[in-house]
Amino acid sequence: MTMTSIGFIGLGSMGLPMARNLVAAGFAVRGYDLRAAAREALAEAGGHAAPTVEDALRGADLAVLMVVNLGQAEAVLFPGDGAPPLARGGVVVLMATCPPAGVAALAARVADAGFGFVDAPVSGGVVGAAAGSLTIMAAASDDAFEIARPALDAMGGKLYRVGRTPGQGATAKAVNQLLCGAHLAVAAEALSLAEALGVDTRVMLEIVSGSSATSWMLRDRGPRMLADEPPVTSAVDIFVKDLGIVLEGGRDAKVALPMAALAHQLFLSVSGRGMGAADDSQIIRAYRSLRGGSP
Amino acid sequence: MTMTSIGFIGLGSMGLPMARNLVAAGFAVRGYDLRAAAREALAEAGGHAAPTVEDALRGADLAVLMVVNLGQAEAVLFPGDGAPPLARGGVVVLMATCPPAGVAALAARVADAGFGFVDAPVSGGVVGAAAGSLTIMAAASDDAFEIARPALDAMGGKLYRVGRTPGQGATAKAVNQLLCGAHLAVAAEALSLAEALGVDTRVMLEIVSGSSATSWMLRDRGPRMLADEPPVTSAVDIFVKDLGIVLEGGRDAKVALPMAALAHQLFLSVSGRGMGAADDSQIIRAYRSLRGGSP
Repeated sequence: MTMTSIGFIGLGSMGLPMARNLVAAGFAVRGYDLRAAAREALAEAGGHAAPTVEDALRGADLAVLMVVNLGQAEAVLFPGDGAPPLARGGVVVLMATCPPAGVAALAARVADAGFGFVDAPVSGGVVGAAAGSLTIMAAASDDAFEIARPALDAMGGKLYRVGRTPGQGATAKAVNQLLCGAHLAVAAEALSLAEALGVDTRVMLEIVSGSSATSWMLRDRGPRMLADEPPVTSAVDIFVKDLGIVLEGGRDAKVALPMAALAHQLFLSVSGRGMGAADDSQIIRAYRSLRGGSP
Repeated sequence: MTMTSIGFIGLGSMGLPMARNLVAAGFAVRGYDLRAAAREALAEAGGHAAPTVEDALRGADLAVLMVVNLGQAEAVLFPGDGAPPLARGGVVVLMATCPPAGVAALAARVADAGFGFVDAPVSGGVVGAAAGSLTIMAAASDDAFEIARPALDAMGGKLYRVGRTPGQGATAKAVNQLLCGAHLAVAAEALSLAEALGVDTRVMLEIVSGSSATSWMLRDRGPRMLADEPPVTSAVDIFVKDLGIVLEGGRDAKVALPMAALAHQLFLSVSGRGMGAADDSQIIRAYRSLRGGSP
């Protein structure tokens, strides 16, 4: 089976370059986004700008969803009582970051409608989306996975099959985000201690960046933690959202996640002071506030 | 000034190879340890086995202390009312992991006795000690630092000056251990979530080891977290101790360290079930207990 027809919903900072990569790989892509400019950008890249969601999905072999959240995914697939207008044997590929239990429920509804489902969230950010080097964490039945594989290969550099049950991809993404968010909090806590005791923070960062104390987040965000007004590469509110999804996943599965819960509170405290749009490295301001200094 | 005479106290798994490296670099090393076998091992390497602490330190230009804790360092330097029997202009080099405030107090007492002090804890473990590749985090006055530098260079691969005030080296080590210990807890929490939800943990570990979610600890300890009875490379109780020192440093300086405090509780819970001698990767058992399964 050759997959040629893709309806792509959500042409944001991640979705647009992912859809472009599908076009470049030879897929016929009909893309929809609320913003006309995003639809036009896809058309300029060789795709088709669909005026509505239904136009994007009608007769498509694959529906690729890079929407904001699970609620949008549900609204895209089930706007009314009927089934999504995909081609017979079509497969839904959900690539947004969503709570595991909600993904499992949506997958069941899609199966009831007669379609396959691939739970396939990504990591790698805007840079990875543009380069086609995303890490994709897929959970799906063998049939659905094989149908979606060529498109996934066109968008990602590393395609992992983490399980056979939709929801397990979302869990893998939650595990990834748990680590990222908690590492950010730990890095901020460590540098805050060095600051408070007058240790040279630049030397300190160099030491721990090269020792067994290092993390990817420490090396990437550490320098920005020590800057006054760093550029925003990813916002505090992204981790407010993503750690929220992590904790929702834990709650639904009755799994206690104390480190993630604490990190979430720290991100919340920075967002709550109106700094949710600041660079996520600024979680260090939560610690400066705890020390009573100027955040 | 050429430094030739070193009294080395504490010839354990770290101290013995460090003292051997000093001998190999041409220093005259008189070493003391409570265990006769350790003293003899130094003598076989070309050093001198001192029968007492006083014999090791008498007339020495440098006193290098790789003892178990601050209490031992105090007992070594000030067993009675008098000053340590170092040569005029001698310098004490404390390389053990100790609480910052206690190091600062000991350094003041050493200064009152007329000697210099270099606060110089290390990271890099037994492997780094043997290879002479330790990372040394030194805080000292210019004079004391320059006197100690050739010996520090002989023991370490990377020599950092983190500050001028003794106690700041201990703080840097605390920052390092905070990161290591908290990263272990976060790694265990993340893998525990994957376990609970039936995600393939081997694939999961491969994903996060290569993504922005990675940490040195995750890559090193993750595989052992998934093993049933992994070999012990560093024990749970080492982090019970080291995170305790981290929190003592925070408490003394009135710096809140919530992530480190939580990680410490998790290590304590594993130690409290009689598993303090297990590999530190087994902090994952704290999470398995939280899930109600067999730890």
